[in-house]
Amino acid sequence: DGSAVESLDYEVIENCAYRQEQAKRGKIFRAYTILVKWILASLIGTGTALAAVFINISVENFAGWKYSLTFNIIQKSYFAGFLVYMLINLALVLSSACIITQFAPAAAGSGIPEIKGYLNGIDTHGILLFRTLIGKIFGSIGSVGGGLALGKEGPLVHIGACIASLLGQGGSTKYHLRSRWLQIFTSERDRRDLVTCGCAAGVAAAFRSPVGGVLFALEEVTSWWRSQLMWRVFFTSAIVAVVVRSAMGWCKSGKCGHFGDGGFIIWDISGGQEDYSFQELLPMAVIGVIGGLLAYWRRNYLHKRGNRVKVVEVCIVSVITSVISFGLPLFKKCTPCPDTDANSGIECPRRPGMYGNYVNFYCGEKEYNDLATIFFNTQDDAIRNLFSAKTIHEFSAQSLLTFLVMFYSLAVVTFGTAVPAGQFVPGIMIGSTYGRLVGMFVVSVYQKLNIEEGTYALLGAASFLGGSMRMTVSLCVIMVEITNNLKLLPLIMLVLLISKAVGDAFNEGLYEEQARLRGIPLLESRPKYQMRNITAKEACGNKQVVYFPRVVKVMDALSILKSNNHNGFPVIDHTRSGETLVIGLILRSHLLVLLQSKVDFQHSPLPFSSRDGPIPIRHNLTEFVKPVSSKGLSIHDIHLTPDDLEMYIDLAPFLNPSPYVVPEDMSLTKVYNLFRQLGLRHLLVVPHASRVVGMITRKDLLIED
Amino acid sequence: DGSAVESLDYEVIENCAYRQEQAKRGKIFRAYTILVKWILASLIGTGTALAAVFINISVENFAGWKYSLTFNIIQKSYFAGFLVYMLINLALVLSSACIITQFAPAAAGSGIPEIKGYLNGIDTHGILLFRTLIGKIFGSIGSVGGGLALGKEGPLVHIGACIASLLGQGGSTKYHLRSRWLQIFTSERDRRDLVTCGCAAGVAAAFRSPVGGVLFALEEVTSWWRSQLMWRVFFTSAIVAVVVRSAMGWCKSGKCGHFGDGGFIIWDISGGQEDYSFQELLPMAVIGVIGGLLAYWRRNYLHKRGNRVKVVEVCIVSVITSVISFGLPLFKKCTPCPDTDANSGIECPRRPGMYGNYVNFYCGEKEYNDLATIFFNTQDDAIRNLFSAKTIHEFSAQSLLTFLVMFYSLAVVTFGTAVPAGQFVPGIMIGSTYGRLVGMFVVSVYQKLNIEEGTYALLGAASFLGGSMRMTVSLCVIMVEITNNLKLLPLIMLVLLISKAVGDAFNEGLYEEQARLRGIPLLESRPKYQMRNITAKEACGNKQVVYFPRVVKVMDALSILKSNNHNGFPVIDHTRSGETLVIGLILRSHLLVLLQSKVDFQHSPLPFSSRDGPIPIRHNLTEFVKPVSSKGLSIHDIHLTPDDLEMYIDLAPFLNPSPYVVPEDMSLTKVYNLFRQLGLRHLLVVPHASRVVGMITRKDLLIED
Ligand SMILES: Nc1ncnc2c1ncn2[C@@H]1O[C@H](COP(=O)(O)OP(=O)(O)OP(=O)(O)O)[C@@H](O)[C@H]1O
Ligand SMILES: Nc1ncnc2c1ncn2[C@@H]1O[C@H](COP(=O)(O)OP(=O)(O)OP(=O)(O)O)[C@@H](O)[C@H]1O
Ligand SMILES: [Mg+2]
Ligand SMILES: [Mg+2]
Repeated sequence: DGSAVESLDYEVIENCAYRQEQAKRGKIFRAYTILVKWILASLIGTGTALAAVFINISVENFAGWKYSLTFNIIQKSYFAGFLVYMLINLALVLSSACIITQFAPAAAGSGIPEIKGYLNGIDTHGILLFRTLIGKIFGSIGSVGGGLALGKEGPLVHIGACIASLLGQGGSTKYHLRSRWLQIFTSERDRRDLVTCGCAAGVAAAFRSPVGGVLFALEEVTSWWRSQLMWRVFFTSAIVAVVVRSAMGWCKSGKCGHFGDGGFIIWDISGGQEDYSFQELLPMAVIGVIGGLLAYWRRNYLHKRGNRVKVVEVCIVSVITSVISFGLPLFKKCTPCPDTDANSGIECPRRPGMYGNYVNFYCGEKEYNDLATIFFNTQDDAIRNLFSAKTIHEFSAQSLLTFLVMFYSLAVVTFGTAVPAGQFVPGIMIGSTYGRLVGMFVVSVYQKLNIEEGTYALLGAASFLGGSMRMTVSLCVIMVEITNNLKLLPLIMLVLLISKAVGDAFNEGLYEEQARLRGIPLLESRPKYQMRNITAKEACGNKQVVYFPRVVKVMDALSILKSNNHNGFPVIDHTRSGETLVIGLILRSHLLVLLQSKVDFQHSPLPFSSRDGPIPIRHNLTEFVKPVSSKGLSIHDIHLTPDDLEMYIDLAPFLNPSPYVVPEDMSLTKVYNLFRQLGLRHLLVVPHASRVVGMITRKDLLIED
Repeated sequence: DGSAVESLDYEVIENCAYRQEQAKRGKIFRAYTILVKWILASLIGTGTALAAVFINISVENFAGWKYSLTFNIIQKSYFAGFLVYMLINLALVLSSACIITQFAPAAAGSGIPEIKGYLNGIDTHGILLFRTLIGKIFGSIGSVGGGLALGKEGPLVHIGACIASLLGQGGSTKYHLRSRWLQIFTSERDRRDLVTCGCAAGVAAAFRSPVGGVLFALEEVTSWWRSQLMWRVFFTSAIVAVVVRSAMGWCKSGKCGHFGDGGFIIWDISGGQEDYSFQELLPMAVIGVIGGLLAYWRRNYLHKRGNRVKVVEVCIVSVITSVISFGLPLFKKCTPCPDTDANSGIECPRRPGMYGNYVNFYCGEKEYNDLATIFFNTQDDAIRNLFSAKTIHEFSAQSLLTFLVMFYSLAVVTFGTAVPAGQFVPGIMIGSTYGRLVGMFVVSVYQKLNIEEGTYALLGAASFLGGSMRMTVSLCVIMVEITNNLKLLPLIMLVLLISKAVGDAFNEGLYEEQARLRGIPLLESRPKYQMRNITAKEACGNKQVVYFPRVVKVMDALSILKSNNHNGFPVIDHTRSGETLVIGLILRSHLLVLLQSKVDFQHSPLPFSSRDGPIPIRHNLTEFVKPVSSKGLSIHDIHLTPDDLEMYIDLAPFLNPSPYVVPEDMSLTKVYNLFRQLGLRHLLVVPHASRVVGMITRKDLLIED
C-alpha cells in the first residue's frame, strides 16, 4: 500500500504569512536570492566533483593495491593469493554493508529511483539526509573497491542530490552545521530545483560528461522542467567539469597514487573506427535487438530481510564474486602476445599495477590471459580493454561468452543487496562483451573492411543501457562524451532506437521497475488510455469529503485529524445569507504546527474580521516547512491540556486560499495533465460555477515590467 | 496592438463530437495512430534532409561558378570581373526578393521567431503554407548564393516546420496534394508535436548536428515539452543525419558539382588545440564579454515599407555587399605564402574553385590575399579558414578588423530586408573574426604555449551566438558537433556562460526581440515579478463577461459575435430552481462553423434532453479544425436567410464542458504558470465553489492498465 510514502507539496501556498513575507522583500532581497542561487549551483558542482574525485581516488587505490598485492603473492602460491584477494574484497564489501545496515539504510541501491521519485513528488524517508550522503560515499568505496558487479555512477547521482539538498537548507540540522546565509530556500519547490542541479552534477562527475549530465537530469530524472533551470543546471555541470579536470591535473603528478593516469575522457576511443559501410548496419541492428532482449530478461530483486541476513547475503555474494573472478581465469589457457606494434603504445603483457590491455596474471613472459584481462581487473580497465581499437583477436569468443554469462548472473544477484549499487558500469560491461562478440563475428565475415571490434563493444554497451534504462538523447551524449568519438553518433543512435523499441515492447524501464519494487508510486508523463472515459468525479469515488470549518474547536480539529489520514482538507465558511463557501485548503502538516505551537488559539468562536486590522502572523514561514526527508510532525507529537481543547482556531490566515480546482465532469486525462504538469498534491473537484467573474486570455498576461 | 494575431487552441475540447469519435476508436486505430506518427517522423526527417541537400548543392554550385568565373575574368580586367560578380549577385538576390514579395511574403526573415510563436500558441498568418515552403527554399538559395551577409540555417528550421505541418495535414490543401491516410492529426495539439520534430530536423540538417537539433528544439523553440516527444524528435534527427550522410556519400563522386567535398562534419577542427592552460582563461573570458557586448549592440530592424521599396532596398544592399567584398581585398596588399609544410595538406595559394585557405585573388604566384580569403569566398569557406589550425599568422590584424567592422555593418543592414535570412552563419563569421583577433594577441603574448588561433575563433563564434541567441546547452552541442572537437567543450561552456550573462544584463535574446518587432506576443516561461500582487480577478479588469445562453436564437448569436471580437464565450444554463450554471465554453470558430452549416438549427427554443436518446452529431470533428496558418471563417462568411435568423441552436453538444477554471483570488503568478504550462487560450475566473465534490490526489491517478 501507499500509506508509507507521502507526497511532496510543490504548490505555492499563498496564505497570509506568505503574502506578508513577499511584501517585505525588496529589490535587494531579490538580487540576493539570485546571487545565492548561483552560489549554490557552484557549490553543488564543486562538492559533487570533489566527492567524485575522492571516491575515484579511494577506489583506484584500493583496487590497485589489491591487484598488485595479489599478483605478487601468486608468484609464490595461488591459494594464498586467492585468500588474500578474497579477504580484501570481503573486508571492503563488509564495511560497506555495515555502513548501510547500521548507519544509513537509505543509501542502499542506486538511489536514482528514489531521486526520480522525489522530483516526481514522492518523499522516500531519509534519502536526502547527511548520514545518507556519508553512507553513500563510503559505502560506494567499499562495494566498488571490493570488486562487486556494480558501479559508482548511480550512487554519484544520489550523492549530488544529497549535497544539493543539504546546501539548500544551509547544512545539516542534526549535526548543527548550518549557515544562516544560505537558508533562504526552504520550500520544497526551491529544493526541487537544487536537487535537479545535483543530479546533473552527479552524472557530469561520474562520466566527466557535462552535457550528458544536463540531459540525464532532463530526460530521465525530472518530471518537470523549466527552461530557466537549464541554464543553471548547465552551469553546475560546467563547474563539475572544471573542478574534476583541475583535480585530475593535480593528480597527474602522482600525488593521488593510482588515480590520475588517463585523460579527462574516460574511455577515449577517438583513434578507432572512423567510418562504416552499409553492410555493417545489419549486425549493428542485431546488437540493438540483443540489448533490448538481454535488458528485458534481466530481473530485479529487492532483498527485504533483516539486517543480519542482509550482511550475510552481501558477504556470500562477495565470496562468490571473488571465486569466479579469480578462479575462472585460472582455468583459461594463456595466449601468446601478438606481435606488438611499437608505435601503438600497447604493451603485452602490461606491467602489474598499471593500466592497459593484456593482463599477465599467472602467465609466462610473453603471454597474457584474456579472461583475466576483463575479470581480474577493475571494471574501468576492463571496459577500456573491451572498447580498445587495434587489438583484434585479443579476446577469444569462449572467454567473452564465459564472462558474459558469469557477469550477467553476478550483476543480477548483486543488485538489490544492501550496498550502494550503480547500474551503469555493469551495464556497459555486459553490453560491451556481447558487442565485442558480435564484432569478432563481423570481423571474420567482412574481412576486407576496416572494422574495429572495439566499435562494436561500444555499440553493445549503448544497446544494453538503452534497453534497460530507455534513455535516448542523454545516453547518446554520455556515450559520445565518455569515448570522445563523435563520428559514431549515428550508429549509437541506431542501436539505441532499436534496443529501446525492443525493450518498450516488453516492459518498463529499469528505474521505473525499481521504483515500483521500492513502493514509489511514480506518475508517468503520459496518462493512461482508459482515463479518457473517467470523469474527475468518478475518480474520487463516492468518498465523503472531510471538511474543516473556518473556525474550528481544537477538540474537533484533533478528532478530525485522528479519524482519517488525509493530508489536505477543504475549509468551508458561511456567507451572510447562510450558504456554504469553500474558502481554501488546509494541509494536515500546517494544522499540526498550529496545534503544537498553540499561539493562535482563541477563546471566541468568531472569525477574525478584517475590521480588526491586518491579521497578526505569529509564525515564521519556515516553521511550516517540513524538514527534508523526514516524516515531520505527527498527531502523536501534539500534547494539549483540557483547557486547550476548549479553545478555537481561525484557519483563514493559514489556509491556501486558491487551490487548483477542476469541474466535476472533466476527463481524468485532462486532470492528469494538470496534476502532473504542475506537480500538484491536491486538486479539488467542484461543481460547475454559477457565474464567471472574468476571462483570462493571453492579452491579460502580457504585462510589461 | 495584438488584434492582428490570433492564439491557437491547444486544449482538448471534450464535447460530444469528440467523445463519440473517441468511443469509435478501437485498439487497431490506436496502433495505426502510433505507426503513422513514426512514419511522419521519418518523412519529416527525410524531407528536411533532402531540402537541405538541395539548398546546399544549389548554393555551392552558384557560388563556385560565380567565383571561378570572376577569377577567370579578373586575369584580364578587374572592372569587367567586378561587373560580372556584381551582376550575378544582383540577379540572385533580386530573384529571391521577387519570390518573397510577390509569392510568399511569410518566407522573409529567419522564420524562427514565427515558429517559436507558433509553438508558444500564436498563429502568424501564412507561416506554414506550401507556398511559404517553396518561397523559403528558393529564396534562401538566391539570398545565400547572392553573397549577402546572412545564412541558410535559420530558414532551414522554418522549412523543417513547414514540411512537418504539411505532412501532418496530409499535403497541401490548396494544391490538392493530399493523402487521406496521413490525415489523422488534425488538431493543433498534434500539429504542435510535428512542428517540434520539424524544427529539430531543420537544425540537424543545417549543421549536420542531430543531438544539437533536438536540444535546439527543446531549449529555444518550444515552450512546452513532454518526455515522450524527445524520443520521436530524436528519431527524426537521426533520420536527417542518415539521409544527409548518404546524400553526401553519393555526391562525393562529383555528381553534385561543387558540393560534396568535405566530410559530414562541417568545420572539422579535431586536429586543433587539445589542451589549454590556466593563463588562457582570461583572454577567453574577454572573448565572452566581447561577444555579449557586440551582440547587444547589434540592432534589429524590420523594414515594413511597400513591396517595390523592399525590392529596391534589397538590390542596394546587394550592390553594396558586392562592392565591399570585391573592392576591399583589392586595396589590401598581397602576402607571400608561408613555408608550407608538405604534410599539412594546406596549399598556398589554393587552386581557384577549390576549398581551402589562402585565396589568391589578384595576387602573384606564391602569394595570397588574406582579406579575400574571408571576404571573396563563400561564408562556409571563410569560417573554415578562420577556424583552421596550423595557420598562425595567415591573417593580419588589420584585415580582420576591417572585415569585422564591414561585415558587422552589412549583417545589421541586411537583416530585416525581404529575403530569407538566417542569423547563425553571420554570427559565426563575426564571432570568429574577433575571436581570431584575440587569438592572435594571445599567441603573441604567450609565445611558449601551444596555442592555435583557430580555437579562439571558435570560442569567439560561440560567444557571439550565445550573446545574441542566449542558448546554452544546445549551442554548446551544436558547436561541438560542427567542429568535432569535444575537448574544447569546457571552454565553449565558459564563454557561453559569460556572453549570455553579459547579454542578459542588457536586453532580451535575438529571437524574442524579433518576435516583438513582428508583433508576436510570446509568453515567456517565467511570470513577471509584479504578478504576485495581482489576483486573477484584477487581471481581467472590470470587463463585463459576454455569455451565451445554452439555447441561443441565431439572430442573437450573430449580434453577440458582431458586438465584440472575443474568441471564447462561457455558456450558461438555468437549473430547475432557476439558478444560473456555467456549463462550458464555446469558441467563436466553432460557432461560426455551426452558423455556416445550419444543420443544427432547430425551431424550438427548448434544449435537447437526454431522454430523447443520444445527441445526434451531424458534424465530423475535422469540420471544426481551423486550417493551418489561415484566419479560418469570419463573421462575414456567414450568409443567413431571415428564416434562419428566427431559429435556435442548442450549444450543449459543441461546447467544451470542462474548461480550466481558477478561483478569483488566485495570484496571477499561479495563473500564469497554469496558462503557460498547459498551453491554454482561455481560462475562466470563477468565484469560490459552494462545495467540494471530491479530492484528487496521487492515489486517484494511479490506475493500472
Ligand atoms: N479531505 C478529504 N476528504 C475526503 N477524501 C479525501 C480527502 N483527501 C483525500 N481524500 C481521498 O483519499 C484518498 C487518498 O488519501 P490521502 O489523503 O492519503 O492521499 P494520498 O494519495 O495518499 O497522497 P499523500 O501522499 O498526500 O498522502 C484519495 O482517493 C482521495 O480522493
Ligand atoms: N467572453 C468574454 N467576455 C468578456 N471579456 C472577454 C471574453 N473573452 C475575452 N475577454 C477579455 O478580452 C480581452 C482580450 O480579448 P480576446 O478575446 O481577443 O483575447 P486575446 O488575448 O486577443 O486572445 P486571442 O488570440 O484568443 O484573440 C482579455 O482581456 C479578456 O479578459
Ligand atoms: Mg497518503
Ligand atoms: Mg484577440
